[in-house]
Amino acid sequence: MPIGIFDSGVGGLTVYRALHNRLPNERFIYLGDTARVPYGTKSLATVERYAIENAEFLAARGIKLLVVACNTASALALPKIRARIGIDVVGVIGPGARKAVEITKFEANPRVAVIATEATVASSAYADSIRQASEKTEVVQTACPLFVPLAEENWTHEPETFSIAEKYLRNIVEFAPQALVLGCTHYPILREVIQQTVGERVTLIDSGEACAEETERLLAVKNLANPQKITGERRLCDDLDHFYVTDAAERFARVAERFLGAKPAKLEAVEIFGVDKLEN
Amino acid sequence: MPIGIFDSGVGGLTVYRALHNRLPNERFIYLGDTARVPYGTKSLATVERYAIENAEFLAARGIKLLVVACNTASALALPKIRARIGIDVVGVIGPGARKAVEITKFEANPRVAVIATEATVASSAYADSIRQASEKTEVVQTACPLFVPLAEENWTHEPETFSIAEKYLRNIVEFAPQALVLGCTHYPILREVIQQTVGERVTLIDSGEACAEETERLLAVKNLANPQKITGERRLCDDLDHFYVTDAAERFARVAERFLGAKPAKLEAVEIFGVDKLEN
Repeated sequence: MPIGIFDSGVGGLTVYRALHNRLPNERFIYLGDTARVPYGTKSLATVERYAIENAEFLAARGIKLLVVACNTASALALPKIRARIGIDVVGVIGPGARKAVEITKFEANPRVAVIATEATVASSAYADSIRQASEKTEVVQTACPLFVPLAEENWTHEPETFSIAEKYLRNIVEFAPQALVLGCTHYPILREVIQQTVGERVTLIDSGEACAEETERLLAVKNLANPQKITGERRLCDDLDHFYVTDAAERFARVAERFLGAKPAKLEAVEIFGVDKLEN
Repeated sequence: MPIGIFDSGVGGLTVYRALHNRLPNERFIYLGDTARVPYGTKSLATVERYAIENAEFLAARGIKLLVVACNTASALALPKIRARIGIDVVGVIGPGARKAVEITKFEANPRVAVIATEATVASSAYADSIRQASEKTEVVQTACPLFVPLAEENWTHEPETFSIAEKYLRNIVEFAPQALVLGCTHYPILREVIQQTVGERVTLIDSGEACAEETERLLAVKNLANPQKITGERRLCDDLDHFYVTDAAERFARVAERFLGAKPAKLEAVEIFGVDKLEN
C-alpha cells in the first residue's frame, strides 16, 4: 500500500521530495487541496474541517500511513485527524521541533527560531513542542507571509527576496539562534536566501526532511516498509506516484516542475465536498 | 433594501469604500469569502461555484442589487450569476473597461494596460471588454501576483514594493499606455507605488470606482435609489452596513482597519456550504 500525503497546495511537494529521496522503495499518493489553499490565514475550525476531509479522501484510497505535510494543518488539526482515521499519522511540527532540540541540546543556552505562517505562529505549536522536548530551550517565532508567494513566483535569488528576508528575519538575527526551523513547506524553496540572511552558523531545519526521517523510523518499527524492492530507477513524479488536486491541475503541474524539476506523470483533479460538519 | 457586495476576501473593501463614498444614502451588506480566498489562482468551474454560492447567500438576505466586487469572479462567473439570481448584477470588469475606453477615446492610438490576477489575465475579460467598446484600442495585460500579499502586509511605501512594481510593470512602461486599469481590488492600496512606477502621465483607473459610478446610474435608471435620506453623518463601517465573512473574522477586521481606517461595527462569521454542484 502507498503512503498518503496531503498539503493545502503545492508546498507539500518539498515534503514529498524528502520522503521520496529517503524511501525510494515506497509509493506515494499526494493530495494538494488547491481549491482551498492557503490554510495559513484561516481559522482553527476551518483548517480542522478541511484537514479531516483530505485525510478521509486519502484513507478511502487505501494508504498504510498518512503524512500531513502542511504545517498549518499539522499545527491545528493533528489530534482531530488521529481521532478520525484508523491509520498512523505523521505531521511536520513534532519532527521539526524534535530535530531542533536534538541539534541544540549540547549548547549552554539553546536558542531555536521558528518561521511559519500566521496561523502556525498563532497556534504556538512549534514553541510548545520544542519546550515539551526541552524546557531550557528559548524559542522565538516569526510569521513571513510574503515568503509563500515569493517561492511560488520562483524568486529564489532576486534582490527583492533578500531585502524582504532581511526585514522579516531581523529579530531572529538579533536573537542569534543556533537553529532555525523552516516551519512552512514553501520555505525550503527560499533556503539559500534564508541561510545567507541569518548567517552560515545557524543550522536550518527543514521540517519536511525531519518528517521523512520519522516516517522511515515509524515504517521500520511498525513493520510497514515495502518488503519488495522497486526495480529500475525511481524518479520524482514518476508513474508510481499518484497526484490529486482539488483545483487548477495545470498550475499545480507548472509549480511542481519549478519545485521538483518534473511534472507529475499521474495527476488528477478531484472534488472534495463538505462532509458532515464536525460535532466538536 | 440594502445593496449586496461580495468579494473573495478583504480586497473588495476598496469597492465598498467607493460605493459608500458615492452613495451615502444606501446601506450595504458585504460578504468576504475568506474561507476560500484567493480566487485568482483557481479554475473557472471552482470560481463559478463559489461565486454562485456567495450570490445566493446575499440574495437570501434581501438585497436590491448585487455588486460583484471581485475581479476574478466578475471575469469568470458573471453570466452564471445573472442566470441564477433575479436581481440586477454589476461587476467590476465592464465598468473598468468602459472607463478606460472613455478616457483614451480622443487619443490617435489609444493604449490601455491592465494589471490583474493570473486568472483574470488568463480569462482576457478586460481585453475583450475593452476591444468590444473600441476596436482600435491596443491592450496589454500583466499579472502581478505579489501585489495582493504586499497590500495585505500594508507595505505601501517600502522600497521592496517599489522594486517589485518596477519588475512587474517594466513591459507596461515600455508599452506607454495612456490608461492603466487596476484590475484587482487590492491594487488601489498600492496606488502610489504604481503611479510613481508608470509615471504621472498614465491615468490609473480604479475598477471599484468605475463600478460605483455605474451602480449609481443603474439605481437612478431603475428607480432603486433609497428615497429617504439617511440622517446624521455616515462613516465607513458604521452600524448601517453589515459585514459577513466565511472565516477568520478577526483577521478581516484587522485588515479592514488598515484599508479603511475603521473596523466593521457589525461583523459576523458565517458558513457557506456547497450548494448543489453546477450542472454545466
